Amino acid sequence: MPRLTPLVAGLPATVPFVGPEAQERAAGRPFAARLGANESVFGPSPHAVDAMAAAARDAWMYGDPEMHDLRVAIADHHGVAPGNVLVGEGIDGILGNLVRLLVGHGTPVVTSAGAYPTFGYHVAGFGGAIHAVPYRDDHEDVDALAAVAREVGAALVYLANPDNPMGSWHPGPRIAAMLDDLPDGSLLCLDEAYADLAPADALPPIDASDPRVIRMRTFSKAHGLAGLRVGYALGHADLIAAFDRVRNHFGVGRVAQAGALAALRDRDWLGRVVAQVSDARDRIAAIAAGHGLRALPSATNFVAIDCGRDGAFARAVLNGLLGRGVFVRMPGVAPLDRSIRVSCGRAADLDALDAALGAVLRDLGSGVAGVAR
Amino acid sequence: MPRLTPLVAGLPATVPFVGPEAQERAAGRPFAARLGANESVFGPSPHAVDAMAAAARDAWMYGDPEMHDLRVAIADHHGVAPGNVLVGEGIDGILGNLVRLLVGHGTPVVTSAGAYPTFGYHVAGFGGAIHAVPYRDDHEDVDALAAVAREVGAALVYLANPDNPMGSWHPGPRIAAMLDDLPDGSLLCLDEAYADLAPADALPPIDASDPRVIRMRTFSKAHGLAGLRVGYALGHADLIAAFDRVRNHFGVGRVAQAGALAALRDRDWLGRVVAQVSDARDRIAAIAAGHGLRALPSATNFVAIDCGRDGAFARAVLNGLLGRGVFVRMPGVAPLDRSIRVSCGRAADLDALDAALGAVLRDLGSGVAGVAR
Repeated sequence: MPRLTPLVAGLPATVPFVGPEAQERAAGRPFAARLGANESVFGPSPHAVDAMAAAARDAWMYGDPEMHDLRVAIADHHGVAPGNVLVGEGIDGILGNLVRLLVGHGTPVVTSAGAYPTFGYHVAGFGGAIHAVPYRDDHEDVDALAAVAREVGAALVYLANPDNPMGSWHPGPRIAAMLDDLPDGSLLCLDEAYADLAPADALPPIDASDPRVIRMRTFSKAHGLAGLRVGYALGHADLIAAFDRVRNHFGVGRVAQAGALAALRDRDWLGRVVAQVSDARDRIAAIAAGHGLRALPSATNFVAIDCGRDGAFARAVLNGLLGRGVFVRMPGVAPLDRSIRVSCGRAADLDALDAALGAVLRDLGSGVAGVAR
Repeated sequence: MPRLTPLVAGLPATVPFVGPEAQERAAGRPFAARLGANESVFGPSPHAVDAMAAAARDAWMYGDPEMHDLRVAIADHHGVAPGNVLVGEGIDGILGNLVRLLVGHGTPVVTSAGAYPTFGYHVAGFGGAIHAVPYRDDHEDVDALAAVAREVGAALVYLANPDNPMGSWHPGPRIAAMLDDLPDGSLLCLDEAYADLAPADALPPIDASDPRVIRMRTFSKAHGLAGLRVGYALGHADLIAAFDRVRNHFGVGRVAQAGALAALRDRDWLGRVVAQVSDARDRIAAIAAGHGLRALPSATNFVAIDCGRDGAFARAVLNGLLGRGVFVRMPGVAPLDRSIRVSCGRAADLDALDAALGAVLRDLGSGVAGVAR
């Protein structure tokens, strides 16, 4: 066999990412409700759909490797310069390149135990040393993250605000203050994938001249374009420029750029989705309560439902839902794993959740009869 | 500033990829003919366009991270197993991951001087030591590549067949025989981006059980989907599986998978494009001859035109064409750089080339009056 590098040879051979399609193939039938990947079932803007269809005819042309028009529009939207904007293949792709820029063998990196696993996947993939900090009351522990960063001299600190998988959030000033607690030369990767769905006060003001933080945004969540693969980062111009040393320059194609640009411009659609998500969060909370469970507050397009016992019980609930055609996921680390994570859906999706959850809890000899509407 | 790894800090800060859009912005006007990036101006299959438009509505869903349907279709098409097929974000993206799997600090890698620069970009990006072999008579020198690979103990050898930027090719048996000349543990990266446009005898038979070679294919060229970013690799199942350790698992989205699958199935469209490309190659050769220049034989969707003097002269021709709104490119290394590289185009594109080339050569006091039709 070819000679894998020692680093790659030491990485896990198992695939950490199992999509709902694989589960559907294994079950031999499609899910009735797709509520596990925090996608926006409310769909993308019709203008974005039209833009993608038009760009499809022009798909023989590579996309602009500088992604000029999209970057300028994003820069205008946030009141920064285009040089502060990096567009990439979703936040996942940008995270991979960010880690590549900063992390080598043994580089100390800080994140939360149970936070977004793809970040840890990338850090391991470049040989970094992960220091994982426990959540505190279902929130990422900002003080502890900064303290461990100082202790280990972290090159990179990951924080999602709002958080995935718990849906919790910190006020913007709390995040801004955290920057002063980080050691010199440490970069905060502030994953704001759910920013569009969060209360305004959860977002610190953007200061693109601050070299201590890079902020991640995406078209995959509120904009309903997960299947297009476009995310962006806002940061200091020198850091943004450094990505040009390693990125796949033609990696965000013409169709993706066109769809993202149209989505960014359709603020009405975004407003509608935000309202639909808010309604769905309330409905999920009511469904949970109707079955004797507690929904955690959420600033995202999903809700963590505390199943009230341990991880094994929540896993049984999850498996019961999957078996009844309702795709949901759950956190991987205790004590977060006492909950299941349910994406916001349309009325029919949540009706299916309600019915399935009632049946599952009855099967498990738990819960109360579902009455929530 | 954040602490870039020593490897990244040592990489060039300049951007090696300048797209035609940047040139258009600088010139303040669009190109009249876009013949520089070996795109397929004949466009994608209408079925692929329809599939992308339909998938656009479903773009709120992430794509299947296993890309099951597309991989199965590709596997069926080539008579291999799905486990021998890797789908990725264009050949560029796959090359990056291949290099990441095999190349660390100082790992010896062999390629040709003047061959596809993105491969070298990736090798440098992971710290590999590139050994570049000169072309021989405008062909990549298969014997010399293998000899240098043995001499340096190369982990990876790059060969494009057909070749970019010269359009030349070797017979399939010649490539197959080369594998026996490589040292143990060396992997041949056989870039067959232009396979669909090459004579059948330029392609060695596919033996997916052979661990010595990985073959790269793409939807960006004959299939006319450069702006979609889908390529694939065919190789030994163990090597293909190794990519799962590092790849961006959701990196090829739903729209891209749908478009590529429909394109793969439309063999009629592909046949039409192959015929159009063949006609355009003949026309480009006639245009070159009409201006007293020589077109090199090509097994691709572009033609290298030997401008008959040195690199400075070809550069002057190139700049003259750009100034007249005709986007073309040229090889970067002598003696290949005595030529310009012109992608196949429609009649109107090639009319524009013909007129502009005549005017440029007149300006340069060279060539003959254009008479080619």
